[in-house]
Amino acid sequence: MTTPPLVDSQAGDRSVQASRFLDLVAPKLLAAEEVFRRHLDSDVPFIHKAGIYIRQGGGKRIRPALLLLAARLLGHDSEEEVTYAAVVEFIHNATLIHDDIIDHAHLRRGQPTLNHLWGNNLTVLLGDWIYTKAMQMALSHGQLEVVQRLCAATLKMTEGELMALERLGAIDLTVEEYFEIVDRKTAHLFAAACSIPSLIPPQRPEAGQVLAHYGRALGTCFQIVDDLLDFTSRESEIGKPVLSDLKEGKLTLPLILLLSRVAPAERRLIQTVLDERGFERVAPQQILDVVAREGTLAEAAEIAEVYAARAQQELEIFPPGDALEALEFAPDFVLHRRS
Amino acid sequence: MTTPPLVDSQAGDRSVQASRFLDLVAPKLLAAEEVFRRHLDSDVPFIHKAGIYIRQGGGKRIRPALLLLAARLLGHDSEEEVTYAAVVEFIHNATLIHDDIIDHAHLRRGQPTLNHLWGNNLTVLLGDWIYTKAMQMALSHGQLEVVQRLCAATLKMTEGELMALERLGAIDLTVEEYFEIVDRKTAHLFAAACSIPSLIPPQRPEAGQVLAHYGRALGTCFQIVDDLLDFTSRESEIGKPVLSDLKEGKLTLPLILLLSRVAPAERRLIQTVLDERGFERVAPQQILDVVAREGTLAEAAEIAEVYAARAQQELEIFPPGDALEALEFAPDFVLHRRS
Repeated sequence: MTTPPLVDSQAGDRSVQASRFLDLVAPKLLAAEEVFRRHLDSDVPFIHKAGIYIRQGGGKRIRPALLLLAARLLGHDSEEEVTYAAVVEFIHNATLIHDDIIDHAHLRRGQPTLNHLWGNNLTVLLGDWIYTKAMQMALSHGQLEVVQRLCAATLKMTEGELMALERLGAIDLTVEEYFEIVDRKTAHLFAAACSIPSLIPPQRPEAGQVLAHYGRALGTCFQIVDDLLDFTSRESEIGKPVLSDLKEGKLTLPLILLLSRVAPAERRLIQTVLDERGFERVAPQQILDVVAREGTLAEAAEIAEVYAARAQQELEIFPPGDALEALEFAPDFVLHRRS
Repeated sequence: MTTPPLVDSQAGDRSVQASRFLDLVAPKLLAAEEVFRRHLDSDVPFIHKAGIYIRQGGGKRIRPALLLLAARLLGHDSEEEVTYAAVVEFIHNATLIHDDIIDHAHLRRGQPTLNHLWGNNLTVLLGDWIYTKAMQMALSHGQLEVVQRLCAATLKMTEGELMALERLGAIDLTVEEYFEIVDRKTAHLFAAACSIPSLIPPQRPEAGQVLAHYGRALGTCFQIVDDLLDFTSRESEIGKPVLSDLKEGKLTLPLILLLSRVAPAERRLIQTVLDERGFERVAPQQILDVVAREGTLAEAAEIAEVYAARAQQELEIFPPGDALEALEFAPDFVLHRRS
């Protein structure tokens, strides 16, 4: 069994590199943050209040960073990509807000969720408002195709969530179904973020296609790693308890891979957690022990690496430059992130 | 006390007229229904299943009818207005779907609600999907301003719902707050529906502004009447129990108008229903008796008539024609509808 690459002795070096790659678009990310702040507000008191709370909650801003790097790669330097960077983060936030309602989540990034603080009702409407605001902002530069791409990605996302929900608690979820869900719920918005700059005039359809492929592979990698972190990270790092996914009835790659191999008694351990949606009769450590013995964290990590490499290969058509280097580095950053 | 105009001896005549005014756009309404059917579908099993259910549920299709009449008034005859007619009905349906979750409603138009049948989680996501699909459909004719107008109306709607929710159960809701909520949650989408045809080339900005004013006044009239029907209609007519609004904690015009005049004991009756969100200690008839004595149904109906007349006055700039006649008749239809 190889050591999972998630346990990484070079994590320190990489975080230096990560800050360097974000430095490239730091002023634009700040500008996007300002657009985000300005538009996440309204004369409706609850939107104002919740908007401040959401902004304070932060986030990795990985989608805006990728969008701004892709824009730089294509030689754009205008307010347009800044707006779109804020828009993808708006859409991502709206999704999280509705997902947290559905998952009955109490914590997100270590902070109480909106639904936990203000109840489901206000929160459903706030999510609607943010989705619509995102589309309105995206329209502001008159690029219809940008909004088309965002709508298409948002539809895929919602479909992915619906598919996941329909199979919630199912122990027979297949690897194919898992990847179909990941593709829709995560990869398409990454693809949209990376390819939208190609729609800013002068349009670059071929580059756009390549960047969409890059984003889609990177998004898949991102989600596999996200699912791995649910096994490997401490609550202090990702802001939610270990094995939250399983507790919510969600089977992810490390468990799907081992279910076909393990003894019926071990399968029943997992079935029990799925059924009771909690760790009453089974301890998290019992599940973690089976996973460790079967080595499926390393296997899943290897699959994530394949997607990371696929993303990097896509970029070969572009001439060298700092934005290219940063985009080439992004899959490594995603693979080795700890939160 | 005057007889409320809702109790109308000419209802028979009016329903003949209503069918005549719908006849004008009947083929287009059918075409819009087909667009609605075709787009309310997906390879995700739940969307397919829920889509069939939503279509079977029907609806008054008043927003599409108004949009198609406004298009006819402006001389348009293309697939474009048919798409937009389906789009406004999509948006309206998405709102209803999320509202029913928030209101914990079990019945809509006499049928079990989606949330009652399939739970809140799938239903939240379905609403998101329909909102996004609506925007995608609206983009299909390349008219950016149409999507802008729809986004603006949808934001207003969500804000209206949020404002209503923040004041849910409040006995001190003012007439001004009531109209602000009605304007945002209902009138703006009516205004969008009526004015969108003016954005189809050749654009007619002045006509668009007039039609927006018409729609906004008509929408306000529609909502006041909707709120009145909660007092006057039987469950068999509107498909939900009498005084549902009050039971859900929503104060509407007839009660707001009388609260400042009645004795403390009667005020406490209303407070009790608002507090317990039900009719445990107060019978619906006790409330209805106070309302009848104070005559505020007639007062609210008179206010609705003012808005109906205002809508009709807006249309004076247009030359005579069948579409104009139908639009002039629409406020009467809205005022005197029984469901």
